[in-house]
Amino acid sequence: MSHQFTADDSRLLSDIMRLRRDVRGNHFLPTPVDDSVLDKLLEAALHAPSVGYSQPWQFVVIRSDKVKQQVQQSFLRANIAGQAQFTGDKNAQYSKLKLEGILEAPVNLAVFYQPQSTPVLGQTSMPDMGRFSVVCAIQNLWLMARSLNIGVGWVSIIDPNAVKQILNAPEQSELIGYLCIGYVDEFLDEPELKTAGWEQQKTKNDVIFKDSF
Amino acid sequence: MSHQFTADDSRLLSDIMRLRRDVRGNHFLPTPVDDSVLDKLLEAALHAPSVGYSQPWQFVVIRSDKVKQQVQQSFLRANIAGQAQFTGDKNAQYSKLKLEGILEAPVNLAVFYQPQSTPVLGQTSMPDMGRFSVVCAIQNLWLMARSLNIGVGWVSIIDPNAVKQILNAPEQSELIGYLCIGYVDEFLDEPELKTAGWEQQKTKNDVIFKDSF
Repeated sequence: MSHQFTADDSRLLSDIMRLRRDVRGNHFLPTPVDDSVLDKLLEAALHAPSVGYSQPWQFVVIRSDKVKQQVQQSFLRANIAGQAQFTGDKNAQYSKLKLEGILEAPVNLAVFYQPQSTPVLGQTSMPDMGRFSVVCAIQNLWLMARSLNIGVGWVSIIDPNAVKQILNAPEQSELIGYLCIGYVDEFLDEPELKTAGWEQQKTKNDVIFKDSF
Repeated sequence: MSHQFTADDSRLLSDIMRLRRDVRGNHFLPTPVDDSVLDKLLEAALHAPSVGYSQPWQFVVIRSDKVKQQVQQSFLRANIAGQAQFTGDKNAQYSKLKLEGILEAPVNLAVFYQPQSTPVLGQTSMPDMGRFSVVCAIQNLWLMARSLNIGVGWVSIIDPNAVKQILNAPEQSELIGYLCIGYVDEFLDEPELKTAGWEQQKTKNDVIFKDSF
């Protein structure tokens, strides 16, 4: 008989999911994140599902200030280009948002997808499945971090190829996520962009359908 | 002060992650999955992070046998093409694997990415971020299912455009994942493809690096 979880267990998981946040630099504390704690985060990532059991992930743990500074330079360039895509009020609002915590977070984590040269079971019709496996690993890590009262911020305003060069990544590896990790002064009650009115929360009727669209 | 989780909470989350499995048709039970239970799974998905708070997901809950049968036809075609990519022992081993539970699972769930026509904050440098948000939602749902002792199998051997047609999906929507959901006779101790020796487990040294590759 497989292990049976209880209703209390399920409610606790729901709380962890509900209280998880994307954390930016104005909330990270300099409190060190020990290797033993970081190991729990990476263990969670390694328990993610992967297509064809391919485990196509690579993790680069970054504690070096020099490396972080190089990555932040890439963010700054990408952020200027990103902001330029928004006009009017959105452009003004964009400029006030703190969107990363690269230097403030004690640990950065670059997560890559490493394609394999031979066919992968389950990836023959949907070639993105390997990338999606890496995202599952990131989401596992993010939830585990929240359960350890550690914040994670996913920085996506960044040139993936610049990060590859900075980290001396193999040619075939692809950056999937760049994470800032550390203890925080608080976890906000709601997503910051919801509170700021950047986007409205969608309703279930907007996004859930029965048997067909 | 934000809610602080305990070491016990973190261990429970670790157990849920460790005991989660990809479930195929030979393990699903016909026991109905009530709407109230399904709602908990969808709630978990809706608590996933999304780039720029874009919530770019669409979920189609499938209980119709007719729809399931059409999707299974697409699986059967894609599976023949998939198997053909493997040669020798792998080809023989492939033919013995049960790789989906479309008809056996009481509920199927098709999960789509709906791109938005205007720029998305955080997606300006990494265009896949919206797709990755949808994958985070799937992983949340998968973990919530395990905590409710419900199995999930992700079917990726399928033609995404065929599924779009069957479900009458809007032109711009993209299929990200097709899930089979139901109670199970057991959760296997290990990933089936690990036990079968299809792939070896990678070591931490294979996939974790410090500051640079």
